[in-house]
Amino acid sequence: MTDTPSSHPFAGDPVFDLHVGGKLETVSTVPLTGAEELSMAYTPGVALVCEAIAADPSMTQHYTWVPNTVAIVSDGTAVLGLGDIGPAAAMPVMEGKAVLFKQFGGVDGVPICLDTTDVEEIIATVERLAPSFGGINLEDISAPRCFEIEDRLKASLDIPVFHDDQHGTAVVALAALTNALRLTHRTFATTRVVISGAGAAGVAVAKILIEAGITDLVVTDRKGVLSSQRGDLTPVKKALAEMTADRTGRTGTLAEALVGADAYIGVSGGTVPEEDVAAMASDAIIFGLANPTPEVHPEVARRHARVVATGRSDFPNQINNVLAFPGIFRGAFDVRATAITEGMKLAAAQALAELVGDDLSEDRIIPSPFDPRVGPAVAQAVAQAARDEGVARR
Amino acid sequence: MTDTPSSHPFAGDPVFDLHVGGKLETVSTVPLTGAEELSMAYTPGVALVCEAIAADPSMTQHYTWVPNTVAIVSDGTAVLGLGDIGPAAAMPVMEGKAVLFKQFGGVDGVPICLDTTDVEEIIATVERLAPSFGGINLEDISAPRCFEIEDRLKASLDIPVFHDDQHGTAVVALAALTNALRLTHRTFATTRVVISGAGAAGVAVAKILIEAGITDLVVTDRKGVLSSQRGDLTPVKKALAEMTADRTGRTGTLAEALVGADAYIGVSGGTVPEEDVAAMASDAIIFGLANPTPEVHPEVARRHARVVATGRSDFPNQINNVLAFPGIFRGAFDVRATAITEGMKLAAAQALAELVGDDLSEDRIIPSPFDPRVGPAVAQAVAQAARDEGVARR
Repeated sequence: MTDTPSSHPFAGDPVFDLHVGGKLETVSTVPLTGAEELSMAYTPGVALVCEAIAADPSMTQHYTWVPNTVAIVSDGTAVLGLGDIGPAAAMPVMEGKAVLFKQFGGVDGVPICLDTTDVEEIIATVERLAPSFGGINLEDISAPRCFEIEDRLKASLDIPVFHDDQHGTAVVALAALTNALRLTHRTFATTRVVISGAGAAGVAVAKILIEAGITDLVVTDRKGVLSSQRGDLTPVKKALAEMTADRTGRTGTLAEALVGADAYIGVSGGTVPEEDVAAMASDAIIFGLANPTPEVHPEVARRHARVVATGRSDFPNQINNVLAFPGIFRGAFDVRATAITEGMKLAAAQALAELVGDDLSEDRIIPSPFDPRVGPAVAQAVAQAARDEGVARR
Repeated sequence: MTDTPSSHPFAGDPVFDLHVGGKLETVSTVPLTGAEELSMAYTPGVALVCEAIAADPSMTQHYTWVPNTVAIVSDGTAVLGLGDIGPAAAMPVMEGKAVLFKQFGGVDGVPICLDTTDVEEIIATVERLAPSFGGINLEDISAPRCFEIEDRLKASLDIPVFHDDQHGTAVVALAALTNALRLTHRTFATTRVVISGAGAAGVAVAKILIEAGITDLVVTDRKGVLSSQRGDLTPVKKALAEMTADRTGRTGTLAEALVGADAYIGVSGGTVPEEDVAAMASDAIIFGLANPTPEVHPEVARRHARVVATGRSDFPNQINNVLAFPGIFRGAFDVRATAITEGMKLAAAQALAELVGDDLSEDRIIPSPFDPRVGPAVAQAVAQAARDEGVARR
């Protein structure tokens, strides 16, 4: 009754062929071949386990799959570069994310696509789901709603809540920038950075760069540098302006901001003209992270920059979130962390950067997602940071 | 960092040993060993699938795991015989249910334990989760809330919604009674049945017996036969009285109702004295389904009845829901049914009863859960009934 690889609407297209029947299944980890096993895994035996948890809720951590599971929650409003395509159409991305969580972090992901875009309803729904999961990964929820949803869930829940479009991107971008600075003999304190894009990723990248020690930083939207001198800023952008351009007094257009800048990080989906990047400092660093079309094509960027990164797998230096989120959740789960803190994210970025080691070169500022050291190294760094910051429960 | 079979709080107890780490995992069904596969299962390739679903939502049925998944939803208020133990303590049962769904029906179950017992909040939450699942299995939600929750979700959703504590029990009890009547040469129209227990299971068993043709039926609660002559009935019990005792004018105690009755079905958790069952008709049928302690111990029941069934695996004729729910959802999913109708449930019961065939005897009125014919036979009957009733989408 089900589809086969040769009978489905887009049969013959390798991507659709691969997606027939979806990409995920739930599988038992216990044997169940006879009445005795059935009476242990289910009634009457299972009642003993239920009673133990009712008497001591921490037993959940030992005898259920909960502490190793993450709900991958989306409302389908900002899916990849496709925008607001709704919860049903978001599902293939969430399934893919679950596959990556397991492959690279040993974490059991459950895709949850919600039939609401209302902030209050999303928050209430995730809060009610929380007993079923060890962590919440928010995904592809549009800005600025994503900020409030994440902040409020972090406040109300005692399990890790992580918006990957923000923090996964930020962690990997910081790791890549760390190595690009090392390669070009720069320091965080003296490097001038321009970020274009003030959405989920732009906000998070700006924040983590500030935490890492960048002091001269501007963020631009379509109207130019976010500055409190502008009268049109949303509350989120106003706060961002105060953290960034207001400190140096910079204003103006993206083109003006790029003159003499050391590093450009594009998370905007727009396009930057070649003459603008040509005006950057020597040994410039250009990360064009928009997918599938980087803000600056890497071949163009290479004419004017020493280090170039994109979000694409077909060019060197792919800034890919999969380098971060599986190991971050693995590390958080390993110590039963109650949250994913700023320190844990910084530790993840540092671990990623350090993995490159002596292989550092213009075309190798970040490890490959298939480097088997990545997940364990990130997990170990995150677990240690969780202990250091007092959010580990063991 | 995780527990091992030898290091956990209840190490050495076989039930707890089996539960270490839980009983479930999510597993990828696609290969992911290199960059090319990553670019198909995740970005950028996955975007093609998202766009196809955005253009035509029915593509969800082909290219996601959704049509084969069931959310196993509980609020932890009526877990096994343990009562209101909360969502965390309910999880081992829901995981077990997911294991059984996969083992016996090939259905991917996802346990969802909700941190709310409010009817409106449960309904709203499940409605918002609905795009992520092909069906909803409600589980261990206390009566009478379970009736409203199921009714309203059936009305608002276009996927199967099934409260197993009601309908799974009802289907298997009907299958067993069908064969018990055959064995004792009775007909539905002339058999007098007494049900004790007016909770979720009692209501559902009464309804399906009426649909199957039983006309002389009473349901009792702790105060006796549900009859409109009583002034203390809740709306649910009033409706049940009108469908049952009001038709024959019967009133009185459980003991009085049992005098001369052909069949007794206990779904109450109480105890019935031996002298009461001794007063039943000859060749009586006694199903004591309370777990772990049947309303009538099978050894006692056998002194006064020809056919005895329990909910336990250590006596003959186990009325076990696992005979029903995996095949019912398998059949519904195979034809993409929009609902699970009364006709589909009756078909499931009939298929189960027929599987016993020529093996019918006092100790064999229902198949074993491990009979490999059960799941496919139930699924096929349910799928055909869905087509006959016009709720199949293929």
